[in-house]
Amino acid sequence: MSKRQKVVIIGAGFGGLWAAKALSKQDVDVVVIDRSNHHVFQPLLYQVATAVLSPGEIAQPIRRILHSSKNIEVVLGEAVDVDTANKEVVLGDGVRVRFDYLIIAAGARHSYFGHDEWETAAPGLKTLDDAVEIRRRVLLAFEMAERDAYLQGRERQLNFVVVGGGPTGVELAGAIADIARQALAKDFKAIKTANARVVLFEGSDRILGTFAPDLSDSAKHQLEDIGVEVQLNSFVKEIEPGRVKVGDDWIDCDVVVWATGVAASSLGKRLGVEIDKAGRVLVEPDLSIKSCNDIFVIGDMASIKQADGTPVPGVSPAAMQMGEHTAANILADIAGKARKPFEYNDKGTMATIGRSKAIAEIRGFKFRGFVAWLMWLFLHVFFLIGFKNRLAVMTDWFWAYLTRERSARLITGKAEHMHDAIEFMQAARKRTERPKSKTAV
Amino acid sequence: MSKRQKVVIIGAGFGGLWAAKALSKQDVDVVVIDRSNHHVFQPLLYQVATAVLSPGEIAQPIRRILHSSKNIEVVLGEAVDVDTANKEVVLGDGVRVRFDYLIIAAGARHSYFGHDEWETAAPGLKTLDDAVEIRRRVLLAFEMAERDAYLQGRERQLNFVVVGGGPTGVELAGAIADIARQALAKDFKAIKTANARVVLFEGSDRILGTFAPDLSDSAKHQLEDIGVEVQLNSFVKEIEPGRVKVGDDWIDCDVVVWATGVAASSLGKRLGVEIDKAGRVLVEPDLSIKSCNDIFVIGDMASIKQADGTPVPGVSPAAMQMGEHTAANILADIAGKARKPFEYNDKGTMATIGRSKAIAEIRGFKFRGFVAWLMWLFLHVFFLIGFKNRLAVMTDWFWAYLTRERSARLITGKAEHMHDAIEFMQAARKRTERPKSKTAV
Repeated sequence: MSKRQKVVIIGAGFGGLWAAKALSKQDVDVVVIDRSNHHVFQPLLYQVATAVLSPGEIAQPIRRILHSSKNIEVVLGEAVDVDTANKEVVLGDGVRVRFDYLIIAAGARHSYFGHDEWETAAPGLKTLDDAVEIRRRVLLAFEMAERDAYLQGRERQLNFVVVGGGPTGVELAGAIADIARQALAKDFKAIKTANARVVLFEGSDRILGTFAPDLSDSAKHQLEDIGVEVQLNSFVKEIEPGRVKVGDDWIDCDVVVWATGVAASSLGKRLGVEIDKAGRVLVEPDLSIKSCNDIFVIGDMASIKQADGTPVPGVSPAAMQMGEHTAANILADIAGKARKPFEYNDKGTMATIGRSKAIAEIRGFKFRGFVAWLMWLFLHVFFLIGFKNRLAVMTDWFWAYLTRERSARLITGKAEHMHDAIEFMQAARKRTERPKSKTAV
Repeated sequence: MSKRQKVVIIGAGFGGLWAAKALSKQDVDVVVIDRSNHHVFQPLLYQVATAVLSPGEIAQPIRRILHSSKNIEVVLGEAVDVDTANKEVVLGDGVRVRFDYLIIAAGARHSYFGHDEWETAAPGLKTLDDAVEIRRRVLLAFEMAERDAYLQGRERQLNFVVVGGGPTGVELAGAIADIARQALAKDFKAIKTANARVVLFEGSDRILGTFAPDLSDSAKHQLEDIGVEVQLNSFVKEIEPGRVKVGDDWIDCDVVVWATGVAASSLGKRLGVEIDKAGRVLVEPDLSIKSCNDIFVIGDMASIKQADGTPVPGVSPAAMQMGEHTAANILADIAGKARKPFEYNDKGTMATIGRSKAIAEIRGFKFRGFVAWLMWLFLHVFFLIGFKNRLAVMTDWFWAYLTRERSARLITGKAEHMHDAIEFMQAARKRTERPKSKTAV
């Protein structure tokens, strides 16, 4: 009899967590390593960024999710390297974790195409902390505008810029337009929040490029219906605090959100195997790596093609399927059975655009508008209920839908940070405004 | 006809917010200035600090609370000075806000008795950000202990220290003991969370000194029942990261929370009137200041005696009553009527100790244990429901009570901060441990 095998999983996103669940109560020891203590339901992250939901409503401690799995241990830590020769994962503080099998599911962040210095001015949206930071900036922009208008009689145009017309960019732009026109409208007295301009820049000739062209068109019209300006074929060439350069023009903005490009976790580079431009690891048909077939790379970190030659998309269902598939292959290995190659089962894709607006493409059928939105809503609530087992989100959504209120609209962060943000915004704005004397009102 | 009067309120805690509510829809213009965009239901802050409730469940945007009051404007900003001669409030960025009447309700923080350098190692609990920071430290301590035990086979004693036996200290110590013994117990596999030591240090000879002595005794026994060590007559003389000095002994600890001393907002010092040792302004019977009777100081910033010579306590009901009273006096002033002196109506006080444990003293009647806790629960839920108009908190509590789960157990904060915290804890620990070689498990 061989000894009990140890499976280490790096990352508790959809890929890693689904792998762990599939290995739960099996005859293996599992260690899940993640930098944070919680799993985030990423498809709703933009709702935290726009103050519709609270962080606690879309995240759950990893420990809690896996607490009934006696064979799974959860460790808080950052995996910085993999010692493939000795089969050990190296954590940030030098501690090493031995493995028999390794599943790397450390995900991806946005790529700034070599301009990482843009991140401060234009944060991306991948983690709960990103979402809270974007929420703070969006809400602060309205607060500062109200303050200027009321205290100094200075009305000015509020500009929100979203870079990238993929699902995240579209969701964010739509949700910012929604709150400006609805939830915030009656709370601000000196400014008309609905006058805020929301601009979405997309480099290619259509948004949501992975959908059929007519759905892209529909999405663009739905976005424009709720007041978002969609600018296609528009590359952002430079970003500074308070403004972005598109083509040859500088555009002033209060908040910029970055929602384009993919940069897979740098852990992929440490494996000594081929990676693509985005840092994704070119995996074998069974998702293992060429140099060591006990190491698997899944989710947004993996580059693999479907039977028709198109790449498996970087979406949560694909990550979940990869996680479950890898778990099954490991169990097959241990049982002395043959591994199976991974096949992506595309159950359809959908993108939400705003309240009551969405598009969906399911096995060739196309849906748009309210019907697509209802499908999106029920699918996500269904997943979240399964995931969190509570009615809080549904209550919040239903309430928000009925009353257009927002219950998650807190600006948090240390006071110093808030002041930094205010100074940062004021500094950015000064460039474009003539100084006025400070007068009491 | 005189022109419409302008009332400026600094701070949207219980005092300022209740003043604003009482001035709502009256024939005055009101401006509420606060450093943050939300009002916090402070009596439940310790529940956020111990991961029972989420920040969004005990806080609400000030704008939202006051949005139907057309005569009230909310401004995000920090009041740093009061120009009593010109009747203007000066904000951090130099902008001035003119007033006819001013209500200063900027509250208090904890006092470190001249040792402000202790704050980093031993944060206090006054704001939502404080609560999230303490939550992070408490949860990280358990995570780090689990990590050491599992990865390095190193079991060690977890020590939590709370300094100060007032209501906040008692609530925090009780709640930490509760989560260690219940909510976290089944989620951690390598450590026994119930073995965590929770020590409450109180300088005087009893905890909850504002209650009757037999209730203090009862509270001490109730705390000890749930495993908190209560050390009376114990002064903390020094604090360093990872340890506190009590008497002549250094005690190692993973987390220290500071819950003693009162330091009123420094705005009181800017008024040119007499203040007490804690920085509270000695106010006139109508809560105005001696040098300018259009300026009122209320809540934790005000020092005033009751008819029996005892000071009005720094509790939320007192702040609310002062806010309402001041609003009424201003309206009386404008109507040409006489102001009334403030009289505190003591409706009773209660302190909660843990799940099902509390003490209460109401007009001479004393309650303890489960009955007192039920009274506390219903009173707070009643206030919160009024305040937030939602069932989320009750659901969460009821669920937590039935299942002893925690739905708010997220460690947030930028990744760098988390690593700082981990390094900080590790550095603190190294002093007391012999170095061990790092071995893979």
